[in-house]
Amino acid sequence: MISKKYADMTTKGSIIREFAQYASKRALEVGAENVHNFTIGNPSVPVCDAFTKELQRMLAEEEPVALHGYSPTLGIESVREAVADSLNRRFGMNYTAADIFMTSGAAGAIAHAIRCVTEPGNEVLIFAPYFPEYIPYIDGTGAAIKIVPADTASFQINFEAFEEIMNPNVHAVMINSPNNPSGIVYSTATIKRLAAILEEKQKEYGHDIYIISDEPYREIIFEGTDSPFISAFYDNTICCYSFSKSLSLPGERIGYIAVNPACKDAELIVLMCGQISRFTGHNCPPSMIQLGVAKVIDMTSDLSIYEKNKNILYQELTGMGYECVEPGGTFYMFPKTPIADANEFCRMTAHELDLILVPGDSFACPGHMRLAYCTTTERVERALPLFEKAIKMCR
Amino acid sequence: MISKKYADMTTKGSIIREFAQYASKRALEVGAENVHNFTIGNPSVPVCDAFTKELQRMLAEEEPVALHGYSPTLGIESVREAVADSLNRRFGMNYTAADIFMTSGAAGAIAHAIRCVTEPGNEVLIFAPYFPEYIPYIDGTGAAIKIVPADTASFQINFEAFEEIMNPNVHAVMINSPNNPSGIVYSTATIKRLAAILEEKQKEYGHDIYIISDEPYREIIFEGTDSPFISAFYDNTICCYSFSKSLSLPGERIGYIAVNPACKDAELIVLMCGQISRFTGHNCPPSMIQLGVAKVIDMTSDLSIYEKNKNILYQELTGMGYECVEPGGTFYMFPKTPIADANEFCRMTAHELDLILVPGDSFACPGHMRLAYCTTTERVERALPLFEKAIKMCR
Repeated sequence: MISKKYADMTTKGSIIREFAQYASKRALEVGAENVHNFTIGNPSVPVCDAFTKELQRMLAEEEPVALHGYSPTLGIESVREAVADSLNRRFGMNYTAADIFMTSGAAGAIAHAIRCVTEPGNEVLIFAPYFPEYIPYIDGTGAAIKIVPADTASFQINFEAFEEIMNPNVHAVMINSPNNPSGIVYSTATIKRLAAILEEKQKEYGHDIYIISDEPYREIIFEGTDSPFISAFYDNTICCYSFSKSLSLPGERIGYIAVNPACKDAELIVLMCGQISRFTGHNCPPSMIQLGVAKVIDMTSDLSIYEKNKNILYQELTGMGYECVEPGGTFYMFPKTPIADANEFCRMTAHELDLILVPGDSFACPGHMRLAYCTTTERVERALPLFEKAIKMCR
Repeated sequence: MISKKYADMTTKGSIIREFAQYASKRALEVGAENVHNFTIGNPSVPVCDAFTKELQRMLAEEEPVALHGYSPTLGIESVREAVADSLNRRFGMNYTAADIFMTSGAAGAIAHAIRCVTEPGNEVLIFAPYFPEYIPYIDGTGAAIKIVPADTASFQINFEAFEEIMNPNVHAVMINSPNNPSGIVYSTATIKRLAAILEEKQKEYGHDIYIISDEPYREIIFEGTDSPFISAFYDNTICCYSFSKSLSLPGERIGYIAVNPACKDAELIVLMCGQISRFTGHNCPPSMIQLGVAKVIDMTSDLSIYEKNKNILYQELTGMGYECVEPGGTFYMFPKTPIADANEFCRMTAHELDLILVPGDSFACPGHMRLAYCTTTERVERALPLFEKAIKMCR
């Protein structure tokens, strides 16, 4: 008998995918150049040359049996050291290799982190708007999900709602800054206030509460944005990182968990990740890719195009009358839709204008739409008249 | 609060690791050339040149954004096709890409397969001797484990014990041929008998029973060995494959699930794997590695050294008086220990002779020891006098 739970999951389509697939279908029908596809958060700039050169060097010079050999369960020691050293250098932290667990991207990191710090039935808090995959990540662990509604005026944390929802069964709070889908970066004031509340609640409830900080967009920060390193503000923080966006390597599945050494049981949590990885069949990210990213640990792709695209889109769209909180990073923005029903608006722009956007309902924030502008500036500019048409169609 | 379950797991050491770590420690103390380490199943021959050349070609010629881009959840379509075509060509099957799910090695494949075909509380049967990691793979899904004791005279299936243990709550039967640790390959007669019993039990119990066939050693078959392709004999078979051993790529984490198209709900099972991979944070093996193995899909490393080493060890050890069933494949053999307590024997050879073996108790088969002879023939030959000393010390 096949598993009912997983069989049922196959019938539940994702709205992001529905719109992305529509974009692909239209590209076949009318040509890709005529479809304005803002659906998918796939990096559009190449990995830095140094990464490619290092892989080429390894393939030419290293002994293949060693190069492609098993990684230790927790990651290759020299790679874990490189991650720790880089975080210490850049953010004034004091990680050691023992605090680092190498993962298959941020997805693997989050799935492991939740299992580490919750028991089935415990609550994990997430803040709208959030990346929809958080739901299966948390669901799969047996923990319960509680959603804090968005502060749509700023997309910082809605603290009133947060404090109302907090209760002794909450053992982890998941945050994502810079944020997918809003592009907003939590300010130092936001992080300090969150940390203060959690410190207080830890005392009140008599147990630890962990921040699971999902940081794949950490390196994509726009000029003038206050972007605190979250783990520096709260001891019980597990940082979940991916090189997918900073190095444009989403398909190579590489990231890490960095457990704040000030966190209670930091090294034990890393060892627990190793145990969890055994039964998920995860077992370490690929050896060669681990070694490759370690070599370019402080580098990124040339990410400047995302800021350039944001500036154009933000200025032009707000000029047309769209309401939008200005992103501080990422390659997303999350304007209000001109009509309240975002699904209806996005279906209309898709069908009438081949302008493909994702309705905010998927991110638990109706009345908004996500634009992924990880594309060329030329494509952004060509789409502008369509955004104008779209808002006019709603008047 | 950290998870009690996973925290407890970190305190339970693996005996294989205990012996492997002792070997590493001794290598530092007396020099690696003086330690006779037969503990770890790490391939010792390089990947075929064509794989390295293909990776070099891709890095030089392909557009990095596309090369390192997201793989679809189920694997890159052309790679899934290459796998299906190869299996059809080699084994007369009729797989299509829709029956293939790309995984992070056999570990990922098994963990997904069990989740697909069991509900928590269902029983999964495994046959001793078995790879000890099966326990966390199955445990992690919530299914229950039932162990069929070994037929130590042949290491084929102990059918009497099997039929006694079978019951309506068994929904999957996991087999591993060629076998780690015995090196034995299940014969056509064994597979036919297993299939016939399962067909009958499916009817009797009124539900499907799946074979989950763990096949990482499928390409390491010695001369004259009858080595049937298991999926050809039983419709409800999920083949779990890894390129780790055939291409010496254990660290690159690449394998697949091939669901027999004759299996009930074959394509649905593949879709379910995609859903399961979401919450484990697995999400596809690395894109570049998928593309690399597809290019060399019908090739292997030069695996001949394993047979050469087996021939020497089998002849010499049996000549010394060790009892052993002759392996038909893999790079393992599993002789009886000269004394009944395999732990005691292996501790003795380790401490007195720097001859490091793994006791069979870890594989649910006491009184035996596993030798991993994926090493140089020179090292095998240098160890022979120590095997002789060891058996004499027990007389």
